[in-house]
Amino acid sequence: MAGARVHVDRLTKPPGSLGKLEELAEKLAGITGEIRPMFSKRSVIVMAADHGVCEEGVSAFPAEVTPQMVHNFLTGGAAVNVLARQASADVVCVDIGVNAELSHPALVQRKLRYGTGNMAKGPAMSRDEAEAAILVGVEVVDAAVSQGVRLFVTGEMGIGNTTASAAIMSSLTGVTPQQTVGRGTGVNDERLLHKIAVVERALETNHPDADDPLDVLAKVGGLEIAGLTGVILGAAARRCPVVIDGFISSVAALLAVRLKPEAAGYLIASHVSHEQGHCALLKELGLNPMLELDMRLGEGTGGVLALHLVDAACRIVTEMATFESAGVTDGKQGANDGETAR
Amino acid sequence: MAGARVHVDRLTKPPGSLGKLEELAEKLAGITGEIRPMFSKRSVIVMAADHGVCEEGVSAFPAEVTPQMVHNFLTGGAAVNVLARQASADVVCVDIGVNAELSHPALVQRKLRYGTGNMAKGPAMSRDEAEAAILVGVEVVDAAVSQGVRLFVTGEMGIGNTTASAAIMSSLTGVTPQQTVGRGTGVNDERLLHKIAVVERALETNHPDADDPLDVLAKVGGLEIAGLTGVILGAAARRCPVVIDGFISSVAALLAVRLKPEAAGYLIASHVSHEQGHCALLKELGLNPMLELDMRLGEGTGGVLALHLVDAACRIVTEMATFESAGVTDGKQGANDGETAR
Repeated sequence: MAGARVHVDRLTKPPGSLGKLEELAEKLAGITGEIRPMFSKRSVIVMAADHGVCEEGVSAFPAEVTPQMVHNFLTGGAAVNVLARQASADVVCVDIGVNAELSHPALVQRKLRYGTGNMAKGPAMSRDEAEAAILVGVEVVDAAVSQGVRLFVTGEMGIGNTTASAAIMSSLTGVTPQQTVGRGTGVNDERLLHKIAVVERALETNHPDADDPLDVLAKVGGLEIAGLTGVILGAAARRCPVVIDGFISSVAALLAVRLKPEAAGYLIASHVSHEQGHCALLKELGLNPMLELDMRLGEGTGGVLALHLVDAACRIVTEMATFESAGVTDGKQGANDGETAR
Repeated sequence: MAGARVHVDRLTKPPGSLGKLEELAEKLAGITGEIRPMFSKRSVIVMAADHGVCEEGVSAFPAEVTPQMVHNFLTGGAAVNVLARQASADVVCVDIGVNAELSHPALVQRKLRYGTGNMAKGPAMSRDEAEAAILVGVEVVDAAVSQGVRLFVTGEMGIGNTTASAAIMSSLTGVTPQQTVGRGTGVNDERLLHKIAVVERALETNHPDADDPLDVLAKVGGLEIAGLTGVILGAAARRCPVVIDGFISSVAALLAVRLKPEAAGYLIASHVSHEQGHCALLKELGLNPMLELDMRLGEGTGGVLALHLVDAACRIVTEMATFESAGVTDGKQGANDGETAR
């Protein structure tokens, strides 16, 4: 990272003037060990699963939309497919717990169960299942790394998963459901109040232990969230940067960091979503998003858009001229010492 | 725009969940008259000029850096070149008033004078010169449109031009120089206070007429700022969207809108820069930036990064499946009416 800093300060621009792109270039150097990294192969891992809590009526969409959207991912018609094509990223779709029979040559079939249990009435899954789901994420990353992928984006599909994510966030941070429950795909005011009450009931019913991330994940989590926790831990273990999408992905990142604090250095924030709770969650993670698009779609869409910014940071350190090579005066008349202006 | 709205709401995603990308898709439809526009050819127009006010010592860099950086643009080593290559955009560099002899096959030579006069002592230029500089911008756009370019980004180079931009913004909006003058390329606290005093002196000396944008531009403006005002007016006249970069570009946009309010509909905000004043300026223009990267480099760098988001909006409307084509349930159980969640 120090080597990247020295190089970035030699480039033909005022020190610090590329803002977060400079910080990103430093971070990528720290992660990969290379001042001029290249990420020619990149994948968005879309983990899909269903949520028993949907029977409480917490979403604007019915649960049948989860398998329908998985089919849409596999045939290339969803927003994440479109944006991934633009960013030259593969979409790897993993059935880790969809409540339907799914079959497609491109689908990664790692179903652990047909959706979680209803957390308003009992634990979403067992501790063993949560651990198995994390390991699915690690293994999916390992398989991609063995094919040359060095940059990951987290994505997910699961009707009901903003409800589970809010419950996890409240459990791990102590922030009340009033502040972590959002509108998800777009519930109205009445349904929002109901959704808050369901999360409160899930927390009362299960008593997740804030000091035990796996307990929280098992009791009020989701299979796709656990899978993404594994993707993040796996990517960090392989020294690959992992771009975090929206609220659900950020909850998976918080779980990963609580399980293994060193994972924090491998995370790249993409956008701040419109979902209530996301902004506070990014602060908790110490992450600074680059895009502000009022998006609330998930799937990995915001993360994939940020790949262009990762590419920009890589190109800057690789292609820009230095003051010396371009014969530009490195002016310092009355310049800031670099602290306040950076 | 209404047709684009109807189409966007049929795509396989919750209504409004792509946030600003959906608004952008509508805006592009309104500008071009096409629901699925394509922008295969795009140019960033970098207007370069010098500022007489530099003799007051308002910048961290000496004025000689302006021609040095123009050379860097022409040989492809500057940040804007790197980011433009990534976004498949041409960099069109225009010498509209650099205080040096410049010669290069790729340079558009439209020099009107060798830098402006020192606005702290008298008008920066004559009214005729300001008008001529605007027309240079219009003509550069016309030439590009005749070669198939349909999407523009504003860029600039001119040591001292945040000083002129702050003076213009204060003149047009009544906001004091304390709030419009920023650190530019990175002046220290002492130099910042001096820069504010210089802008105050320029306003007292010249008495620009807030109701006459051309008077403001001539008295406390810059040749490259005038050129960009012309780029924006020219793009709007040719029904081409124009992506606005940072503080200086946004000042040119404000001048364009004050001269011709209809131009506002053709502007696309890219990022909010680190330069003091930019955020308020975007509000004044009614624009909502998409990127927040703490950048303060200019050249068009933030604008060029936003081309990926323009491309994303175009791809979304062109490539995404509809609920009908993908067989996905368009669920509305307890859904928001679309007003508060959008």
